[in-house]
Amino acid sequence: MSGHRPESSWGSWNSREPTTVREEEAFELGENGNLQDNLPKKSAMKYRDGSSIDWLHEEALERERDYVKKSQKSIRSLLSIWADSVRVWLVVATTGFGIGVAGAWLDVLVKWLGDLREGRCQEGFFYNQVTCCSGLDPGEFCTDWQTWSEYFNVRRIFAQSLLQSSIYVTLAVVFASSAALLVNTYAPYAFHTGIPEIKAILGGYVFDAFLTPWTLLIKAFGLALAVASGLSLGKEGPLVHVACCMAYMLSRFFDQFKHNEAQKRKILAAAAAAGVSVAFGSPLGGVIFCLEELDTFALESDVMWRGFVASAIAAVSLQYIDPFGTSKLVLFQVTSGGDTWRAFELIPWLSLGVIGGVLGSLLIKLNVEIALYRKSSVLNEYPILEVATVSAITAAIAYLVVFTRVQSSELVANLFQECDPARGDYHGLCNPTAMWENVFLLLISAAIKLALTAWTFGMMVPAGIFLPTIAIGACIGRAVGMLTQSMQTTYPKAWLFLSCPPDPIVRCVSPGFYSVIGASAMLGGVTRMTVSLVVILFELTGALSHVLPIMVGVMTAKWVGDALGKDGIYNVWIAMRQYPFIPPVDFNDKGRTAADAMKPFGTLVKIQEGQSTIKDLENLISIHGFHGFPVVRGRDLVGYATRDKLVSFIELHLSSDTSNKICRFSLSKPQHSSVDNDIDLTSCLENSVLHLRKEVPQALVVRMFQKMNLHQILFTHQGQLDGMLTKPDVVALLTAHFPHTGALSSR
Amino acid sequence: MSGHRPESSWGSWNSREPTTVREEEAFELGENGNLQDNLPKKSAMKYRDGSSIDWLHEEALERERDYVKKSQKSIRSLLSIWADSVRVWLVVATTGFGIGVAGAWLDVLVKWLGDLREGRCQEGFFYNQVTCCSGLDPGEFCTDWQTWSEYFNVRRIFAQSLLQSSIYVTLAVVFASSAALLVNTYAPYAFHTGIPEIKAILGGYVFDAFLTPWTLLIKAFGLALAVASGLSLGKEGPLVHVACCMAYMLSRFFDQFKHNEAQKRKILAAAAAAGVSVAFGSPLGGVIFCLEELDTFALESDVMWRGFVASAIAAVSLQYIDPFGTSKLVLFQVTSGGDTWRAFELIPWLSLGVIGGVLGSLLIKLNVEIALYRKSSVLNEYPILEVATVSAITAAIAYLVVFTRVQSSELVANLFQECDPARGDYHGLCNPTAMWENVFLLLISAAIKLALTAWTFGMMVPAGIFLPTIAIGACIGRAVGMLTQSMQTTYPKAWLFLSCPPDPIVRCVSPGFYSVIGASAMLGGVTRMTVSLVVILFELTGALSHVLPIMVGVMTAKWVGDALGKDGIYNVWIAMRQYPFIPPVDFNDKGRTAADAMKPFGTLVKIQEGQSTIKDLENLISIHGFHGFPVVRGRDLVGYATRDKLVSFIELHLSSDTSNKICRFSLSKPQHSSVDNDIDLTSCLENSVLHLRKEVPQALVVRMFQKMNLHQILFTHQGQLDGMLTKPDVVALLTAHFPHTGALSSR
Repeated sequence: MSGHRPESSWGSWNSREPTTVREEEAFELGENGNLQDNLPKKSAMKYRDGSSIDWLHEEALERERDYVKKSQKSIRSLLSIWADSVRVWLVVATTGFGIGVAGAWLDVLVKWLGDLREGRCQEGFFYNQVTCCSGLDPGEFCTDWQTWSEYFNVRRIFAQSLLQSSIYVTLAVVFASSAALLVNTYAPYAFHTGIPEIKAILGGYVFDAFLTPWTLLIKAFGLALAVASGLSLGKEGPLVHVACCMAYMLSRFFDQFKHNEAQKRKILAAAAAAGVSVAFGSPLGGVIFCLEELDTFALESDVMWRGFVASAIAAVSLQYIDPFGTSKLVLFQVTSGGDTWRAFELIPWLSLGVIGGVLGSLLIKLNVEIALYRKSSVLNEYPILEVATVSAITAAIAYLVVFTRVQSSELVANLFQECDPARGDYHGLCNPTAMWENVFLLLISAAIKLALTAWTFGMMVPAGIFLPTIAIGACIGRAVGMLTQSMQTTYPKAWLFLSCPPDPIVRCVSPGFYSVIGASAMLGGVTRMTVSLVVILFELTGALSHVLPIMVGVMTAKWVGDALGKDGIYNVWIAMRQYPFIPPVDFNDKGRTAADAMKPFGTLVKIQEGQSTIKDLENLISIHGFHGFPVVRGRDLVGYATRDKLVSFIELHLSSDTSNKICRFSLSKPQHSSVDNDIDLTSCLENSVLHLRKEVPQALVVRMFQKMNLHQILFTHQGQLDGMLTKPDVVALLTAHFPHTGALSSR
Repeated sequence: MSGHRPESSWGSWNSREPTTVREEEAFELGENGNLQDNLPKKSAMKYRDGSSIDWLHEEALERERDYVKKSQKSIRSLLSIWADSVRVWLVVATTGFGIGVAGAWLDVLVKWLGDLREGRCQEGFFYNQVTCCSGLDPGEFCTDWQTWSEYFNVRRIFAQSLLQSSIYVTLAVVFASSAALLVNTYAPYAFHTGIPEIKAILGGYVFDAFLTPWTLLIKAFGLALAVASGLSLGKEGPLVHVACCMAYMLSRFFDQFKHNEAQKRKILAAAAAAGVSVAFGSPLGGVIFCLEELDTFALESDVMWRGFVASAIAAVSLQYIDPFGTSKLVLFQVTSGGDTWRAFELIPWLSLGVIGGVLGSLLIKLNVEIALYRKSSVLNEYPILEVATVSAITAAIAYLVVFTRVQSSELVANLFQECDPARGDYHGLCNPTAMWENVFLLLISAAIKLALTAWTFGMMVPAGIFLPTIAIGACIGRAVGMLTQSMQTTYPKAWLFLSCPPDPIVRCVSPGFYSVIGASAMLGGVTRMTVSLVVILFELTGALSHVLPIMVGVMTAKWVGDALGKDGIYNVWIAMRQYPFIPPVDFNDKGRTAADAMKPFGTLVKIQEGQSTIKDLENLISIHGFHGFPVVRGRDLVGYATRDKLVSFIELHLSSDTSNKICRFSLSKPQHSSVDNDIDLTSCLENSVLHLRKEVPQALVVRMFQKMNLHQILFTHQGQLDGMLTKPDVVALLTAHFPHTGALSSR
C-alpha cells in the first residue's frame, strides 16, 4: 500500500505530479542536465510517466507481433491469435459488467447516505427512505422512516428544525471531509473529474499512476461520499475514470496489453464509453461521447465496436441490477409533454441557447480564476479544510432554498416533468398562483449553483461537472418556460400565440421540456460538445420530436460560447495542467507555415554521421532525454535514430573494443574508408518518420498530428534537414490563445 | 436534357463509364498518348471524371479562402464568412427535409402500385387498400376495395384465380420493365444500389455524372416501380443515392461547393446519413452508418454533426408527413416479446449467427458469379428483357408461396411480431398445429429469396440489398425460433429448458425476436457492418435488453463470414467496378515494405531540373495525364510539381520569348549561371507532399492513405528519390486478394 501512498499534503503532491508538456519541452531542449534517473532502463519500460507514446512505433510493434504469429502456421500460433482476441473481449466485457455493477452500487450508496442526512429507517439502518417506505398501499403513511427529530423525540418546532438542519449540515461536512481526506491521503489523482486526464491518456500521454486500483477504490468511494454530501458536483465524469481504472486493472493481467501502449489505450477507450453509458443510461451516447469528446476518431474503427459492446453490457448490467426497482435505465425520465411545437417557441429556445452559451463561458472563466486563486493562495495548504468549509456553506445555503435542498438528480428529474395534477406537485412548482415566486427561486437557485459549482469543480474531491450544469440549465429553462407559458395564458389572443390550441385547458407551452432545452444549452456552453450531448439527451427523452429543439439549444449555445472563448471546460483544464493532448479542432494558422513553429536545425540535438563514437552516443543519450535524434551528415539528413533502439544497440555492443568505434548510419561509403574503425548502426534508424517541406501550412501539420497521432515530423528540403516539430510543439501551438496554459502544472 | 442522355444500349453505356482505377494507372504510367481532350482546361475544372481528388490540396485551398476572408476585417468579409456557414446549413437542412419528403412520397407510391396488382379502390383510383378501407368500424367488411375479379365481375373460382394471378404477374412485369426502360434510356447510373459509388465518391472519386438531377428523378421513380413490381429488392441503398443527388443538386447553386471538391463531399456525407435515417427511420443509425460503412472517419469531426442534423431533420419530416397515418417512424415495429432471455437461447442465436455468416457469403459469391455471367453472356445485350423475365419469374413464384406473395416489408413486419391471439394470425404463422409446414415454407421462402436476390441485385433497376437480406434472415430466424419453441413446449422438463417458467401458458421462447436476430445475422454476413447494424436494429426494436442478442448474432455472422471471404457485398462491387476507394480495413502486409509496392524511380515520369524548357514542360503535360510530376536533379529530389499549377503557370508565361527558357524549381544557383535564360517555377511545387523512407512497412503506408486521404507519397532516402506510391497503387494492394477485381469495369 505504501507504494501508492504519496505525501499527504497538497503542496507536496503537486510536486510529485508527472512531468507535463512545458517541462518536457524544456527537457527535450536539453536544458536539464540531470535526468538520468528518469531514463527508461530497458525496452520493457519504454516511456517515462509524463511523456507521450509514439503511436506509429507501438502499432508497428503490434503488427510485427501479429505477423510473426500468423506466419507460423502451427495450431499453437492459431490458438494464440484466437486467445489474443478472446482476452480483448474478456477485458471489454468484464469492464462493461463491472462498471454497470459499480454504477448501481454507487447509486444505492449515495441514496442511502443522502437520506441519512434527514433521518433513518426503523426497519433497518441500511435502508434508504424509498426502500424503507416501499410496499405501502396508496395513501398509507410511512411510519418506518423517522426524521432525526422524530428519532430523538424532539417535539418543539424550533428545536426540530434546528436539529434537522444542524444534522443535515454536519453530516454533509463529515461526508465531504472524509472524501477529501481519503483522496488527499491515499490517492491524490482521484480528485476532480478525470475526463481531462483520460483524454490526454487516450491521446498518448503516459500517466499510469492515474489508473491504479487504489485510485479506483478511493475515487469510487470518495465519489459516493462527495455526492451524498450535497456538494455541487455529479458522478458522471468520475464514473468514466472509474471505468478506465477497472479496464487498466484487468488489462494488467495480460502481457498483450502490458507491453503495448496502443493496445492498452484501445481498451481504455471502450471502458470510457461504458462509463458514460452507465452514468447517463445512454449506451449510444457513450459511444458517440468517445468519438467526439475523447477523440478516438484517430484510433482504429474496431475501437467503436468494442466501445459499443462495453457500453451495451454496462447498460444491461445496470438495468438488470436495477438498484431502485424502477427498471428505468435513465437518470431522469422525461414525460413527453406534447409532440408538437410552435414556431414562436423558437424565440425562447434561441434565448436559452444564448443564455447557455454566456453562462457556460462564465462558469468556465469563474472556475479558471478560482483554480488559479486556489493554487496561489493559502488555500493550497489546506485542501481538506477548504472542502469542509465549502460543503458547510453549500449545505447551509441549500437548506434554505427548496430547490437546492434535494439532491441535484432529484431536482433535475422533477424539473424535467410537466405539471400533471394526477402526479402531484413538485416543491410547489406547479402552483400557478406562485408563478413569479417560483421563477425567482429558480433563478436564485441557478445563480447559487453556478457559483458553488465554479468553486467545487477543482477541489480535493472527486467531482463531475455534468450534473450541476444540467441542474443550472434546468432551473433556467424551467423559469423561461414558465414565463413563456404565463405570457401565453395571459395573452392567448396575441398574434404570436395564435398557433396555440384555442382551448385554454390544453397545454400549449411545456415548461418541463424547456427545462430539458435549458439543460442542453448549458451543457453545450460548458463542454462545447454537440452530437454526444444531443444523443445523450435524446436517449433520455426518447421522443424524436424533441431532438430538433435540443439541437437548436446546443448549437446556439456552442456558437455563443465559442465567440466568448474557444475551449470547453475539459480542454481548459488540459491546457492549465499542460497535458500533451492535441484537440481535434480546426486550427487557423493565419497563413503561417511550419517554418514558424518548428525547432530550427541549429537548436536541435543531432548525431553527426561519421563523427561520433559509441561512447559519444552513450553520453548523448544520458544527457538528453529525447525520444530520438536526427542523424545528419553536415546538413544532409541521414535518418532519425530512436532512443530505445540506440539504447539496446549500445547495451549489446558496448565494450572496451567498440566504445571508440565511429558510428555509421548510412550505407554509402564515407570519404575515408577505414572500415575497421566503423560500426554499422543503420538498424537504429526509424523507418516510420515523416518528412515534409517547411513551407507546409501549419494547419496541415496540425492535422497530420491529429489524424496520425504522430510523435514528430522532420522538415527537409532537397535532402537537407531544416528543422523538426514534436508533439509538445504542436500542443503549444494549439494552446497559445489560452492565457493560463500550464498554470496548474507543477514546476 | 440531351446532355444527360447516354446511348440507349447497355453495351454502349458501359463504354461511356468513367475511367476506373486500372485505366487510370495505365494512364498515369503514360502508356496512352492521346489524352489531350480529357485534360483539365482551366483551374476551374481540375479533375477529370474518374480521377481522384487531392484532399490535402483541396483542404489547403479551403483554408486559404477562409484565411483571406478572416484577415480582411471588414463587415463585408464577416458577412461573407457568416453566409458561408448559412449556406452549408441551408443545404444540409434542405436535403434532410427533401429526403424525408421523398421517402414518404415513395412509400405512398409503392404501396399504391403494389396494391394495384391485386385490385382497385372504388372510392378513388389513387387510394391504396389501407386508405380505401380506412374509417371502418371493427368487424365491418371493406366493400370499397375491389379485387380485379370483383371489378370485372368474374364469378368462377378458377377464372378468378387465373385473372388475379395473371394481372398480378403482368403488372409486375410492366412495372419492372418500365423501371428498367427508364434507367436504361435516361439514367444508366441510376441502376443498382448506389452505395459502392457513394463510398468511392466520399473517398475522393470524381464521378459527377452519378449525381445529376436526372439520375435523381429516374432513380426515385424507377425505385418505386421496381419495389412495387415485387422484385426481390429494397429501397434503402437507393434512398441514400437519392439523398446524395439532392444534396449535389442543391450544392450546385453555391460556388462555395462547386469549386471545392472536399466541401462538396462533406455535404454529401451528411446527405447519406439523412438517406439512411429515412430508409430505416433510424437517425442515429444514419450517423453511425456514415462513420462505419462510408468511412467518413477520415473527414473532419464537424461532418458528424452535420450528418446528425440532416438525419434528425429527415426523420422528423418523415414522421411529420406520416404517410400511413400510423405515426410510426420505423419500418417494422417490434413488439417486445419479453425482456428476459435464458442461457440456453445462446445455442440457437449462435447457430443463427453461423447460418447468417455462411448464407451471407453464399449470397455474395452467387451475386458475383451472376454479375460476371451477365457481363460476359448475351444478357449484356438485353438488359430490359432480363428484368422483364426475372420479374415474371419472381411474380409467378411469389404468387405460389404465401410468405413471398406479400411485399417484403410487410412480410418482415409480420415475422418480427410475436403470436398474440388478440392481434390475429399472420399468414397462418401462429397456427401451432401447422408448425412443421410453416417451418418448411419459411425455409423454402428463404431459399427462393436468396436465389432471386442474388440475381436481382445488379440488374438494370434501382435495387437495394438490405430489405431482401432482412427478409431472408427473418424467415430463417423465425423458423429456428419456432423449432426451439416447439422443442421447449414438447420437452418442458428437459434440463436445458429448466430455466423457463413452469407455467406452459407463459411464453418462454419468442420466435418473433429470433426473427430479428436472424435478420441481424444475415445482414452481418452480407454487409459485414457491425455497430451501424446493431444501432439500426436497436432503434427498430427500442428495447435495450434486445441489444446483446443482436450483437451476438451480428458478431458471429461477421466472424464466420470473414473466414469465408473478406469483403462485404459493397466492397466486392467496388472492387469489381474498380473504383479508387481505400477501405478502412487493417491491412496485413506480411512483412513487406513500401519498396515492394511503389513505382520505382526508373519508371516514373519526372521533370529534370535545369534541363527542360517551358516548351518541353508543355509537351510533357499534354502527353501524360498525371496529377503531378516529381522534379529531380539527377536522382536528388527537388520537389513535386502539380499539374494544375504547371498548367496555369505555362498559360501565363508561354510566349515566343519564354518558351525556350530553362525551368528552375530550385532556389540554389545552378552550375552555369546564365540567369537570363532561366525561369523560376518554384511556385509550382506542392508544399503538402509527404516523404517517407522506402523501408516503411506497407501497413503504415496504407494507414496514412486511409487516415489522411492522400493522393501520393514520395519515397526518399538521404534526399534521393527512390520511388512514388499513388492512390491507385494502394487500392490495387488492398484488392489484390479478390479474384475478380476490375471484372465489371469498362476497358
